[in-house]
Amino acid sequence: MGEDIKINISDLRSFMVNVFQKLKVSEEDAKITADVLIASDRRGIASHGTARLRRYVNGIKNGIMIPDATMKVLKETPVTMLVDGNGGLGQPVSYKTMKRVITKAKENFISFAAVKNSNHFGIAGYYSMMALPENNLIGISITNSAPLVVPTNGRNFVYGTNPISFAVPAMNEKPFVLDMATSTVPRGKLEVYNRAGKEIPLVWATDETGTPTSNPAKVLKNLLERVGGGLLPLGGAEELTGGHKGYGLGVLVDIFTGVLSGGSFGLQVYGKKGKPPDVCHFFGAIRIDAFIPMEEFKKKMDEFQRMLKNSEKANGKNRIYIHGEKEWENEDKHIDFVELSQKVVDDIKNIGKELSLEIPF
Amino acid sequence: MGEDIKINISDLRSFMVNVFQKLKVSEEDAKITADVLIASDRRGIASHGTARLRRYVNGIKNGIMIPDATMKVLKETPVTMLVDGNGGLGQPVSYKTMKRVITKAKENFISFAAVKNSNHFGIAGYYSMMALPENNLIGISITNSAPLVVPTNGRNFVYGTNPISFAVPAMNEKPFVLDMATSTVPRGKLEVYNRAGKEIPLVWATDETGTPTSNPAKVLKNLLERVGGGLLPLGGAEELTGGHKGYGLGVLVDIFTGVLSGGSFGLQVYGKKGKPPDVCHFFGAIRIDAFIPMEEFKKKMDEFQRMLKNSEKANGKNRIYIHGEKEWENEDKHIDFVELSQKVVDDIKNIGKELSLEIPF
Repeated sequence: MGEDIKINISDLRSFMVNVFQKLKVSEEDAKITADVLIASDRRGIASHGTARLRRYVNGIKNGIMIPDATMKVLKETPVTMLVDGNGGLGQPVSYKTMKRVITKAKENFISFAAVKNSNHFGIAGYYSMMALPENNLIGISITNSAPLVVPTNGRNFVYGTNPISFAVPAMNEKPFVLDMATSTVPRGKLEVYNRAGKEIPLVWATDETGTPTSNPAKVLKNLLERVGGGLLPLGGAEELTGGHKGYGLGVLVDIFTGVLSGGSFGLQVYGKKGKPPDVCHFFGAIRIDAFIPMEEFKKKMDEFQRMLKNSEKANGKNRIYIHGEKEWENEDKHIDFVELSQKVVDDIKNIGKELSLEIPF
Repeated sequence: MGEDIKINISDLRSFMVNVFQKLKVSEEDAKITADVLIASDRRGIASHGTARLRRYVNGIKNGIMIPDATMKVLKETPVTMLVDGNGGLGQPVSYKTMKRVITKAKENFISFAAVKNSNHFGIAGYYSMMALPENNLIGISITNSAPLVVPTNGRNFVYGTNPISFAVPAMNEKPFVLDMATSTVPRGKLEVYNRAGKEIPLVWATDETGTPTSNPAKVLKNLLERVGGGLLPLGGAEELTGGHKGYGLGVLVDIFTGVLSGGSFGLQVYGKKGKPPDVCHFFGAIRIDAFIPMEEFKKKMDEFQRMLKNSEKANGKNRIYIHGEKEWENEDKHIDFVELSQKVVDDIKNIGKELSLEIPF
């Protein structure tokens, strides 16, 4: 990260808001989207942060994302909602839906919402973590995504990296935040290894015959050309190594998002060129004090985290992490500024120029 | 399976009910427990079926399982329940809780229950699948278990194989039933490889230094002697292969079961010798028609399953499975009889003799 450039967060935020507003996104939605991207950079998840601004700009220009779409609640009960994103940006519909899920859970103990006809929503963890300040909720956020992953025994990709996120409060320890693709790695990891000229582990991806490969360039090329192969589910290519479990989790995500919302799943997602991709999400919140008092829960969360972290380390390892811990440390280091690569900074400057905007960095 | 012995299911059922009743389990609870064990054998999951009868008999004799315990609902809202199993068998409290979860979900769209102070409940899938006959519910069943799994970078086991199960109805296709340990494999798999004198893949377990090993005998011995090492999370020992994801799923299970119920988690489970182990469960049901009409959902489930199964196969593979498919085929083949190994048949005959029961096979 030493070569990265420090960019002031409030400058970056107002620049991004200007970018989105220039593209006909409302001020409210522009602010939400900018915040999700910046949160990702702050947490050290560079692949889902400012680096993606170009994709959003292009997405709006190409008709993939409708900048002034208005979400619509199609169906509602005291504990559930079905929402139509109407092809808009993924972040605003996700933020607004999760806000309402939180309100409903506070009133009725549990709430779930399925969203269809949306777009890429950034990091799943942003929305699950929205439940944390309430201090008595577990937050859940799930999404389907562009098909890239091969089912166990399959040759072609059929479904997406389909991430899941759960955020759970603790007392003195940091909240537990699981935020994981259900594939072994997302595509971005192959790009990093490819740029570095490194081989990839055999549980990451398969070639055009469906055989595990260590060559990331070949996989990336095959994915683009759709000639076979793709990313592997968590657990790798074989049942022997548990690949069918990662595959099952990925399918489950498509069921809770695409199937349950009446939207797209598997190969249908991003299935119509130049049209909104019908990405589907699922959000949830569960009130902890419906089960046990909040104090007791938080004490136990601390105790469990310490039990894990303080247990003996394997040979050659010096630390056991809790999920979210690395990201919380990153966030704490990036209160006023984020660190972006020269390439990303150049790219967003170009976006600014193209849109005739003032560039504050 | 050729050498296995066919045992008539109704004979086996009445024998097992007699065994449990002889040990002071009520007729109702005995019938439930027998049914869960037989369902496991019918679905081809021999490790969790009749083969475990000995453990239940011993568990009751040793005070681990209270045969005449009465479950108690400690707290209830329209959509949640907190249940105390009072140290009884895991199957009756799980069955009765899931029954009530289903009723509550039918009335109020969603229902979740956390259960503490229970015992091993058999296959997780039994309870998630209880939602299927309702024909408009997704069923969820989760449990923590005896600590056997090492966290990523850890040397010692801290938490259990912590399985999760989701059951989702379809139309003409079989229901999707995910039922998976969050470790790469359960301990039973190492026992099978050990008996066969085979090496295990390096993503299954670590030795006493926390290093992946191919020697199952060493791991099993170390687990018993608690000298370090244990089963690996789904994804293996390293973050590079996604091990931290399986670890996160395992911790999440302990949060939803042990922490949320106010019961035991991690090393606390089975922590007091000769006492009930405080195994904790979590059950849920979600009404599909709160989101979209049931017909539409089931059509989409069929479509998704066919999309996966009909996609091209990898070199050397001839079939892509849907989760639960192998088990449904096994169940269909075992309507009147189950197939048990000679060892298991001998063992249950001995149990019959010890309890002076008539043995109908």
